[in-house]
Amino acid sequence: MTSNTSDISLQLAQTVADAALRRAEELELKMNVAVVDAGANLKAFHRMDGAWLGSIDISIKKARTARYFDMETGALSPMVQPGKPLYHMEFSNDGLITFPGGIPLKLDDGTIIGAIGVSGSTVDNDQIVAEAGVAALESAVK
Amino acid sequence: MTSNTSDISLQLAQTVADAALRRAEELELKMNVAVVDAGANLKAFHRMDGAWLGSIDISIKKARTARYFDMETGALSPMVQPGKPLYHMEFSNDGLITFPGGIPLKLDDGTIIGAIGVSGSTVDNDQIVAEAGVAALESAVK
Amino acid sequence: MTSNTSDISLQLAQTVADAALRRAEELELKMNVAVVDAGANLKAFHRMDGAWLGSIDISIKKARTARYFDMETGALSPMVQPGKPLYHMEFSNDGLITFPGGIPLKLDDGTIIGAIGVSGSTVDNDQIVAEAGVAALESAVK
Amino acid sequence: MTSNTSDISLQLAQTVADAALRRAEELELKMNVAVVDAGANLKAFHRMDGAWLGSIDISIKKARTARYFDMETGALSPMVQPGKPLYHMEFSNDGLITFPGGIPLKLDDGTIIGAIGVSGSTVDNDQIVAEAGVAALESAVK
Repeated sequence: MTSNTSDISLQLAQTVADAALRRAEELELKMNVAVVDAGANLKAFHRMDGAWLGSIDISIKKARTARYFDMETGALSPMVQPGKPLYHMEFSNDGLITFPGGIPLKLDDGTIIGAIGVSGSTVDNDQIVAEAGVAALESAVK
Repeated sequence: MTSNTSDISLQLAQTVADAALRRAEELELKMNVAVVDAGANLKAFHRMDGAWLGSIDISIKKARTARYFDMETGALSPMVQPGKPLYHMEFSNDGLITFPGGIPLKLDDGTIIGAIGVSGSTVDNDQIVAEAGVAALESAVK
Repeated sequence: MTSNTSDISLQLAQTVADAALRRAEELELKMNVAVVDAGANLKAFHRMDGAWLGSIDISIKKARTARYFDMETGALSPMVQPGKPLYHMEFSNDGLITFPGGIPLKLDDGTIIGAIGVSGSTVDNDQIVAEAGVAALESAVK
Repeated sequence: MTSNTSDISLQLAQTVADAALRRAEELELKMNVAVVDAGANLKAFHRMDGAWLGSIDISIKKARTARYFDMETGALSPMVQPGKPLYHMEFSNDGLITFPGGIPLKLDDGTIIGAIGVSGSTVDNDQIVAEAGVAALESAVK
């Protein structure tokens, strides 16, 4: 499938979300999966049965944070620690999440068309599930 | 399919959302479709390509409002007008939406398991698309 | 029982709330009942089973509004209408509720020691249930 | 008493709150005690005379946090420290509280029907009082 736009389509967002949800099922995890578009606005969201209620907002904030700064949320973690350059940047934007689980979604040419945010387990698991969504996008836009 | 829970499952939420999205496509409308659970927490969300960004929040608030008061959002419209009993109730709950497009989701026995909220066109069209989601639930839980 | 303080005690707040809840049961209504203290801070809250979720915030805002302005919330209704002196005052204080159901709680000497807010039915019913709480206070502090 | 619902009743919420308040009295503590339901919505709240005003919101946020993540708030404390995996997750959900005093409320079969949050003293005392509420629930639903 090709995409000639700089913004994620609902079809692609669902491809990304479905892959993440399948990966979560395989790992027997209960996840919240959010996808935002190029404007960091919510495009798709799914909460698996029994997934943490508090992770609704965290998954959305992870996706937004990843698009706000065009990098994985985990890459921000070392920079927001006490004494580090971006300490307390989470006070901006009505709250950011700066631990793993949020990843920008890119086309082959590097254009960022949105981001995925996953929350519901350890940050390692959140990241694994988010990466499954990213991998599905990469396959889809090849 | 039967449901023996008082809270909507992700599978049912997707059934509802898919039906609403299909109806919107048939009518050539660009919609935001939100589904909340029995606790008024977001369960599923989809924004069709080109749908209004401002309707993300409106669709979610419609779904929440429908569950908050266990009635269609359109039923609130006459009561919140100037001079009417519930004038300006929208100032509560971090904002309510009191025009059509939000409908509670019920089991056959009347148990409310969540709500759908649709926004992206006229309130009449929003309501029609939301009703398509409700109809799909009713078929699914029979 | 006497009270020699200018602030409502938890015991009195429970007396007020219990009377309101009993009145709601008599009328077969499902209510949210909030009591705030002289500082407009939440003192007691009860949500009856099946009561509207959206009325949690409304009942608390009714109680706060009644204490913020030391009058029944229903007394504000005519003043906040379009063209009237206090039009849109609800934009202040993170949201006010200006329809019936909120009433100041007073000692015999007129000292306001808090307020009750009730939400869950028509504004007439909300007011009736709130008045039952007020009556219980008047009996208790005589 | 038995409960065949997945959501806490007002009667059970009061049983929980009363036990916590009695324990606080025994320990000569002044506490705020909040109970939320399965959807993390406020069900009951009591502030003892002289209890900290700032603990109103903390007790409610503790209860919400415990239900949002289905674990004791104290279990989150080590994970949200600087350099730890969930550092600054408190910026989500309009504010979380990640120190002791919030505990999920469960039926015998593990179903989580709500949560209690206590604030007003040291976190150790907050936790002790919250545990008294949990114990009362366990006795009530046996």
